[in-house]
Amino acid sequence: MINVAIVGGSGYAGAELARILSLHPEVNLVTMTSRARKGRPVADLFPHLTDLVSLVFEDVDPVGIAAGADFVFTAVPHATAMAVIPELLANGCRVVDLSADFRIHSRAIYEQWYVPHTAPELLAEAVYGLPELHRDRIISARLVANPGCYPTSIILAMAPLLAAGVIDPATVIADSKSGTSGAGRGAGSATQFCEVTDGFRAYKVGDHRHTPEIEQELSLVAGVEMIINFTPHLVPMSRGILSTVYASLVRGCSTVEIAAIYGERYGNEAFVRLCGGDALPATQYVRGSNFCDIGFRVDPRTGRIIVVAAIDNLVKGAAGQAVQNMNLMAGFGEDTGLLTRPLFP
Amino acid sequence: MINVAIVGGSGYAGAELARILSLHPEVNLVTMTSRARKGRPVADLFPHLTDLVSLVFEDVDPVGIAAGADFVFTAVPHATAMAVIPELLANGCRVVDLSADFRIHSRAIYEQWYVPHTAPELLAEAVYGLPELHRDRIISARLVANPGCYPTSIILAMAPLLAAGVIDPATVIADSKSGTSGAGRGAGSATQFCEVTDGFRAYKVGDHRHTPEIEQELSLVAGVEMIINFTPHLVPMSRGILSTVYASLVRGCSTVEIAAIYGERYGNEAFVRLCGGDALPATQYVRGSNFCDIGFRVDPRTGRIIVVAAIDNLVKGAAGQAVQNMNLMAGFGEDTGLLTRPLFP
Amino acid sequence: MINVAIVGGSGYAGAELARILSLHPEVNLVTMTSRARKGRPVADLFPHLTDLVSLVFEDVDPVGIAAGADFVFTAVPHATAMAVIPELLANGCRVVDLSADFRIHSRAIYEQWYVPHTAPELLAEAVYGLPELHRDRIISARLVANPGCYPTSIILAMAPLLAAGVIDPATVIADSKSGTSGAGRGAGSATQFCEVTDGFRAYKVGDHRHTPEIEQELSLVAGVEMIINFTPHLVPMSRGILSTVYASLVRGCSTVEIAAIYGERYGNEAFVRLCGGDALPATQYVRGSNFCDIGFRVDPRTGRIIVVAAIDNLVKGAAGQAVQNMNLMAGFGEDTGLLTRPLFP
Amino acid sequence: MINVAIVGGSGYAGAELARILSLHPEVNLVTMTSRARKGRPVADLFPHLTDLVSLVFEDVDPVGIAAGADFVFTAVPHATAMAVIPELLANGCRVVDLSADFRIHSRAIYEQWYVPHTAPELLAEAVYGLPELHRDRIISARLVANPGCYPTSIILAMAPLLAAGVIDPATVIADSKSGTSGAGRGAGSATQFCEVTDGFRAYKVGDHRHTPEIEQELSLVAGVEMIINFTPHLVPMSRGILSTVYASLVRGCSTVEIAAIYGERYGNEAFVRLCGGDALPATQYVRGSNFCDIGFRVDPRTGRIIVVAAIDNLVKGAAGQAVQNMNLMAGFGEDTGLLTRPLFP
Repeated sequence: MINVAIVGGSGYAGAELARILSLHPEVNLVTMTSRARKGRPVADLFPHLTDLVSLVFEDVDPVGIAAGADFVFTAVPHATAMAVIPELLANGCRVVDLSADFRIHSRAIYEQWYVPHTAPELLAEAVYGLPELHRDRIISARLVANPGCYPTSIILAMAPLLAAGVIDPATVIADSKSGTSGAGRGAGSATQFCEVTDGFRAYKVGDHRHTPEIEQELSLVAGVEMIINFTPHLVPMSRGILSTVYASLVRGCSTVEIAAIYGERYGNEAFVRLCGGDALPATQYVRGSNFCDIGFRVDPRTGRIIVVAAIDNLVKGAAGQAVQNMNLMAGFGEDTGLLTRPLFP
Repeated sequence: MINVAIVGGSGYAGAELARILSLHPEVNLVTMTSRARKGRPVADLFPHLTDLVSLVFEDVDPVGIAAGADFVFTAVPHATAMAVIPELLANGCRVVDLSADFRIHSRAIYEQWYVPHTAPELLAEAVYGLPELHRDRIISARLVANPGCYPTSIILAMAPLLAAGVIDPATVIADSKSGTSGAGRGAGSATQFCEVTDGFRAYKVGDHRHTPEIEQELSLVAGVEMIINFTPHLVPMSRGILSTVYASLVRGCSTVEIAAIYGERYGNEAFVRLCGGDALPATQYVRGSNFCDIGFRVDPRTGRIIVVAAIDNLVKGAAGQAVQNMNLMAGFGEDTGLLTRPLFP
Repeated sequence: MINVAIVGGSGYAGAELARILSLHPEVNLVTMTSRARKGRPVADLFPHLTDLVSLVFEDVDPVGIAAGADFVFTAVPHATAMAVIPELLANGCRVVDLSADFRIHSRAIYEQWYVPHTAPELLAEAVYGLPELHRDRIISARLVANPGCYPTSIILAMAPLLAAGVIDPATVIADSKSGTSGAGRGAGSATQFCEVTDGFRAYKVGDHRHTPEIEQELSLVAGVEMIINFTPHLVPMSRGILSTVYASLVRGCSTVEIAAIYGERYGNEAFVRLCGGDALPATQYVRGSNFCDIGFRVDPRTGRIIVVAAIDNLVKGAAGQAVQNMNLMAGFGEDTGLLTRPLFP
Repeated sequence: MINVAIVGGSGYAGAELARILSLHPEVNLVTMTSRARKGRPVADLFPHLTDLVSLVFEDVDPVGIAAGADFVFTAVPHATAMAVIPELLANGCRVVDLSADFRIHSRAIYEQWYVPHTAPELLAEAVYGLPELHRDRIISARLVANPGCYPTSIILAMAPLLAAGVIDPATVIADSKSGTSGAGRGAGSATQFCEVTDGFRAYKVGDHRHTPEIEQELSLVAGVEMIINFTPHLVPMSRGILSTVYASLVRGCSTVEIAAIYGERYGNEAFVRLCGGDALPATQYVRGSNFCDIGFRVDPRTGRIIVVAAIDNLVKGAAGQAVQNMNLMAGFGEDTGLLTRPLFP
């Protein structure tokens, strides 16, 4: 049994952490912070947690948090995270950071896409928290950088093919579609119901900040520096990301061969499900769960492969994966508290 | 540990039962039947259950089912249920029936709203499975008639006020709104996405079959025969029922007094949450959970009270309540396997 | 051909006015104002109007507006409207006000539900702009108070029955459901997509500001002072209001008799459609149009009638009705520019 | 004034044709057919057309239709269309066919993707009805093959770049997303509301029948035979297609240069709107209108261009474009009856 705190509990990722942790058999959720909401009961902001989470939002006080908690999830925006994490670590906490602050190994690349880094001394230590790729290093990490939602779906889709050397790393195009919860609860007029429903749009075409994170991890797998196209889109639904990823095969590959590559890589993974037969992933089949569903088609006409991956952006793309990382770090079963079934319909 | 079968597993209620039971620590789900889908894996029809439910749909064979199962959930349409339940009981199963066949105590009233009853000898034995009203009788029942979705929300909203005698039984008007999953998976062109989305409508105004069931239970509580208005509406969402129920107060009642009536009745109920302060229920706060959230307003201008109740129609309105009944019948903790938190957003 | 200005053009009602007026054969749309957006092209804020409305938002300057426009639509919040309208009238404009400022004839009642009135001298002159009830007075009015969206649906539903004396005025309960555009574009976190979709809720139960407006108009028709229950709800869709209104019949009435009452009243109305046979209104069948669809059921079991009315809240509930009023005031055909067909699906 | 018939009026495209034609100042809509619905009023099936379309569905009788109509829209499935069109032509009608039967010039390719062709003698005569590409031939055509919805968006997005020779024809990848109305009204369980809402999925990856039609038209523009990747997806909304199309630039091109290419090509087109500045298309801004909105980004990192195009699949992707074709054929103004503004929100 460990004591856990959530720094930045008033957003969707924070609430989702609370939802999951409130049922985790090895966790005692002791603190949730929110500068803007301090003093208000969590259930006031999130009525679905009425009778389930009885905490009151507290101000952010790293020393006080560290006094009561063994593990801390930081679910605050980038820049805010790196301002508070050093003190949490210094006071003995282990941290899973849901922001982007420690995902990029290169300070220069981080600063090119984000802001000046205020805790660069921690970059070398931080582990990129995708268990399917970096499980061993996560187990012993003090600071885990929880992956972005889009990158989780794209990296899991592409890593086996790049590792197997069957696709040309220069040809990867990731066309991703996300539900609106990815924009956060504090979002403004662009995510008003009337602006989003009945519509579909691309946004940040060519310059979304998840690009360098995807390129970093795929490059590590491929063994060459990769540059990709990544285009995010906004879907009129709350939860879910579906990424359709294109790449040119370096040689003729059969469906059976590709299926074997995925099976070998993910056959023992608790949270990756491979679509068999004619099936393809759909976000409604993973909603509320920590699963990443993956399917693919080989197109002999063009010599390309099309891989489709679906996750719940708030679970495998955020809070669920963060708990998966905590489970590894704390020595719990990797799926502890994460068995919730997808909610369909 | 008990062995459980689901008769009629290809609809939304059946799938929801499978979802809940797949995590129930005291249940072994051994059989799911579907005449139309026999021989097909359950996960083919319900991809969200991939890797979670490995059963293959079987044909309906009461004797065979009874040989392997202690408890049976019948999630088939009315008329079909009463055709199979007598044999299940005769072979030693205990049954929770999700159809309407055993909800109405009066054969005449059943036949007036439905069809000729083919197992009237069981009507006296069947217990109306609303635990908050009939817990004691459910515990020892052999056959429990799981309430309809609309009735669950309306009866829970009105029972305390009728029992306390503060409202006029002749003035009850229930205006209910339901997500589309209530219409079932096999539904036709009227529940196509394009027909439902961006729209809102009333249907079966004045002649919905849930009317006699609501009247039966409210009459029992009130001690007088009640006739009500019940108007169902279709909301462009999958899950959720919100009922807005109006009644005239027989005398001036304060908000505090009414809150006390509800608190006394439901204070110890695991699955009823009372809204405090200015809060009112909303379906998004109960989605995926077995909760019924209840709030109200006293309107001194008109002397009426407006009670609002929200449930997930597939959980507290169907599969969840059915498992709650099974838990009572089997001697498990009433909330065993039903702790899933509401999924929001 | 007349010159028209829209004061307060940055909200949904303002944009809808621009959409309709851009096709009106007798109107020259010369000015749209927005204090917050002045200097920005209208099409920047409303990309759907690209190439269709080439205006740039201007600051609010009543004298300048009056110099260029014969008619002005004020689509600003209450209190703001009454601050600008007197000067517009003084400078020779005729005004259709979409706010609530001039809907309530009684200053005392207005101030009880809203704020102190700053132009009470105009209350006696202002005409309540529901053409089906007040056409004659609208034609010659200088200032028309465009009805609220909910009131339009409820008053049109009830007026014929009250005028015919077949229902008891003390028993009217209006349960209304609205799409989210009614909350306006500037709305905050409560109308974020993730908060609204997949959910249904009641709000402002017992104290919504449209209540006195409905009571005023129904009382005028009934000839007695009426107090009603009015409960608004929020539907996960952009446009549309459906009101389900209950009342006790004072005597047994047949469906045919009630249909005749509606037919007599609305048979010649261009924008009221009566549902025949088994049909009932649905918001998706009026979306984008100026229609109000009305249907009903007589319930002999309870002696009540249930009337269902559907409108598009932004058209018949706001901008369309405002143009209908302008057409009457300007002597155009009442349906000029308003023939757009409902957009389904 | 011409007399017009719709063969196959019970689907969404047929209803949309009726909606548009009911307001067309030069058209007299005389007949709508539906084998399955003959004898039923059109407004029974499509309540939004109540009081607007008073026709009753008739059986399909080519000779009878030709006796009363100058122009016929065939909005029936492929195979059915080519069974009825020869007789309509032989009896003097001019035809706009909304099916795929006459879109593919090569009989062999048609038969490879569809079924054996039963009217191959008409393939050479039929004109592919994309006015922006084939206006001159449409004007004098007897038989126009109205383009598919996906192809309209993709061809309009790519044609200017291929004609200008700035992209490599071998690198085109079209990732398209469509609302559910594209699946038609008669669709089955896969398009039930509960299966579609809250979800997003790819379908027919690598083998959608619109592929050869896109390739045919792009090849004609490029002057080389092209093979592309085309991946359709299903969005939880009724109307709208957004296509995100990727291609490698053959040389460094500036945004200004690409904008000039589009401006030159589409500057005078009534129904193509080019997004300026930072804007990108979104389906909600074209809904209900005949517009195709196009925007793009040059990505210097990868040397690719990403073009985004949005249409309403039922208007520019079906009925609206069909009327645009009829206008050209009949010598009316190309935008006659097509000025309806996009409905937002």
